[in-house]
Amino acid sequence: MNQDKNIVIIGCGAGGGTSAQFARKTDRKSSIVMFEKGRYPQYSKCGLPYVLSGDIPEFDDLIEFSEEWFKKANIELLMETTVDYVDVKNKIVIAKRGDDLVEKQYGSLIISTGSKPLIPPIQHLKERGKLVDGVYALRTIDDAKNISQFIEKGKKATIVGAGLIGLEMADCLYKRGMGVTIVESLSTILPNTLDEDMSNMVHEEISKNIMLFTGHLATKIESKDRKIEKIFIKSNETFEEKTVDTDLLIVATGTRPEISLAKNAGCKIGKTGGIIVNDKSETSVEDIYAVGDCTEYLDFVTKEPAPVGLGSIVVRQGIAAGINAAGGDYRLPKGFLQTCTSEFFGMELASVGLSTKGLQNSSIVSGRYKGLSLPEYYPGGKPISIKVIADKNTGCILAAQAVGSNAAQRINILACAVLSEMDIETFRKLETAYAPPIAPTLDVITLACDVVSMKLKRRG
Amino acid sequence: MNQDKNIVIIGCGAGGGTSAQFARKTDRKSSIVMFEKGRYPQYSKCGLPYVLSGDIPEFDDLIEFSEEWFKKANIELLMETTVDYVDVKNKIVIAKRGDDLVEKQYGSLIISTGSKPLIPPIQHLKERGKLVDGVYALRTIDDAKNISQFIEKGKKATIVGAGLIGLEMADCLYKRGMGVTIVESLSTILPNTLDEDMSNMVHEEISKNIMLFTGHLATKIESKDRKIEKIFIKSNETFEEKTVDTDLLIVATGTRPEISLAKNAGCKIGKTGGIIVNDKSETSVEDIYAVGDCTEYLDFVTKEPAPVGLGSIVVRQGIAAGINAAGGDYRLPKGFLQTCTSEFFGMELASVGLSTKGLQNSSIVSGRYKGLSLPEYYPGGKPISIKVIADKNTGCILAAQAVGSNAAQRINILACAVLSEMDIETFRKLETAYAPPIAPTLDVITLACDVVSMKLKRRG
Repeated sequence: MNQDKNIVIIGCGAGGGTSAQFARKTDRKSSIVMFEKGRYPQYSKCGLPYVLSGDIPEFDDLIEFSEEWFKKANIELLMETTVDYVDVKNKIVIAKRGDDLVEKQYGSLIISTGSKPLIPPIQHLKERGKLVDGVYALRTIDDAKNISQFIEKGKKATIVGAGLIGLEMADCLYKRGMGVTIVESLSTILPNTLDEDMSNMVHEEISKNIMLFTGHLATKIESKDRKIEKIFIKSNETFEEKTVDTDLLIVATGTRPEISLAKNAGCKIGKTGGIIVNDKSETSVEDIYAVGDCTEYLDFVTKEPAPVGLGSIVVRQGIAAGINAAGGDYRLPKGFLQTCTSEFFGMELASVGLSTKGLQNSSIVSGRYKGLSLPEYYPGGKPISIKVIADKNTGCILAAQAVGSNAAQRINILACAVLSEMDIETFRKLETAYAPPIAPTLDVITLACDVVSMKLKRRG
Repeated sequence: MNQDKNIVIIGCGAGGGTSAQFARKTDRKSSIVMFEKGRYPQYSKCGLPYVLSGDIPEFDDLIEFSEEWFKKANIELLMETTVDYVDVKNKIVIAKRGDDLVEKQYGSLIISTGSKPLIPPIQHLKERGKLVDGVYALRTIDDAKNISQFIEKGKKATIVGAGLIGLEMADCLYKRGMGVTIVESLSTILPNTLDEDMSNMVHEEISKNIMLFTGHLATKIESKDRKIEKIFIKSNETFEEKTVDTDLLIVATGTRPEISLAKNAGCKIGKTGGIIVNDKSETSVEDIYAVGDCTEYLDFVTKEPAPVGLGSIVVRQGIAAGINAAGGDYRLPKGFLQTCTSEFFGMELASVGLSTKGLQNSSIVSGRYKGLSLPEYYPGGKPISIKVIADKNTGCILAAQAVGSNAAQRINILACAVLSEMDIETFRKLETAYAPPIAPTLDVITLACDVVSMKLKRRG
């Protein structure tokens, strides 16, 4: 029975590392072994752009938990060790470390294998099976170190993909003095985060600093001596072609869950391509948990499967898996709120829940309000726009988006409303904190709900 | 029946002014008359310290709605007109404007008579029935203008009362180069806003800049030629006396609701001394509403009467009274959350609900967490401390306090939790927005709830 206590974790990213920590907190004595194929223990992937921008001094600063830390916590961390196979019947994990074979028996297994970048079908990106020099995705410290060698003031960078990571990288390269171009195949930027009316505000602002081609497909690149020189883009509408000189190309077009080990172990894979997990982060196979970018879970509002891609979600799954694997009982909410935020070119934005497009199967109504962060009479108030989306029948708040001052904390307030399934009528009367140098008597978050309320009454 | 549409409002402060605006929004045609005894139309009282500090350029900037504005909205505003009597039987308000008598018939009456400063029993504050020169409370623009004449770099100011207004004024006078002393009779500062463990952090910080005597009673002053020169204070513990030279004395020891008109009209007065109003801002007398500092309403959590003193609450009562008086239907939540915030000496603080002392009749448990506003690896994170108070039996969140970065917006999140009667177990799993330059994966607001959760489980 001793082996029931053995916890084995595959992957020491945010998901695996957090699982290990919470397993240890839950059971001071159990054996915990973690396999990591890379050279770095738990570090912040989300922090990579900010080392490249110079905001964070060193790559090593991103390491949140060192090998030493895990050792002190009595967690055995095997670095540069690749798991080849999970023998579910005998509950054994088989891995390779250099030429050595490592076998570990598990009572509970936690899979945190992350995701791989999706490389779009741009011609000539690869030569002899490898991306040419100057072309990178940004997933690991090694990717970032490669990118950093191509950052040079006055040179040109192109980013394919205008999602959060693409725009964060654009800001970072712009700060380092590069000329930046972004190419996005869809007609709007931040398509997964903001509705068009909200993302247009961001678009307008960042167009002041960089070239932005939405509705354009990157078709091919041209290299010289295995080094990128040009990218060709084509308008989806007019089919007009353009060439953009570029010394550095960053591909930020999403990721694909790394599920091969889990699939071979018999774990069910869901329709978004991730390992299906429940509110305890259990997979369909007994005693196997999965966390992070390799999984999918439900969206809180629609209860539809949603890929996991946010660090905040990964950490929460890690907490659940770690506690449950160690014999505790921890349940996540019945779906993820998908609260997220970012900041670039001096703009903060945030959202909770799906966008209007993502909610297309629901009957919804929305309201938008643009105001100031401070009372009008107080100098220095900053613009803040909020959009709130509610269910047309129940009035419940389903999602919200914000661009401007303190967008993230304002969206957190609405995230709490979504989590409690609060309706517009209740939320719009929320008594927010007021003081002239801090916030107005009526905050934009409730004023946007007044707009929704009016629309609901008109329709009712 | 035409007179049913007549709305008469007594007082053009934030409560009366807001009532007028929302009455007009609700009914474009009704007659609305407003009496204001002072010389200024609706202005921000809360903004007064920031004119004195120089953050806001002019007193006139504080006027949120001008006489011109009300005129355009077809609201008759009678300035410098004092209401003497409400004839409830005949529904007539009788006022004096200079030597003229003004009578107005009302269908609905809204009383917004505000409050008066409480002047503590300090000997010799008055000579011949008037406060001596250099001694002021801060309630009106005229008070502030008087104070401004005594602000002089290098001179000394003393403030009696270490509540929010006292500390805001201390910061403002300190910024203007005065030597500032605060005297508070209770043993802690901000006694109505923060528990001792939280207010101590503020105490420590502001003591770096000003003299702070808690547990000291101001006993008397000494004047020369009707102008203050000294204040005498005495320790409540050791009875030791001290003298503090002072050129300006500000009394910030609270207020008393101005209820005489309402009382004479037969409106019930509650145990905190304010006019009793319900969730529609109706008084006990038919067709008479009351809003603002002259009223009392319920605390949302305890359902006990609480005096109204926050601008945010006054405005919300104004919305309710205005809409209801004009024939609409608007109900406030069943009590006030008492969400509030302020900022002084570079510190932001906020709270929602009553302090531990105020909740003494409930069975409570609390947790405190001190963290950073950003992930540890991101430079520039600022300290933020949160205290959350929950019901020991139900786990419901009853109150919270914050000192530090973005305290107000963080408390707004907890205000939403209080409003939805959310329990600690649900809230601590709230998925907050994460991005390295904005917020950590796990925010202090949920980490403080983890502490509460642990305590609840240990006791359970």
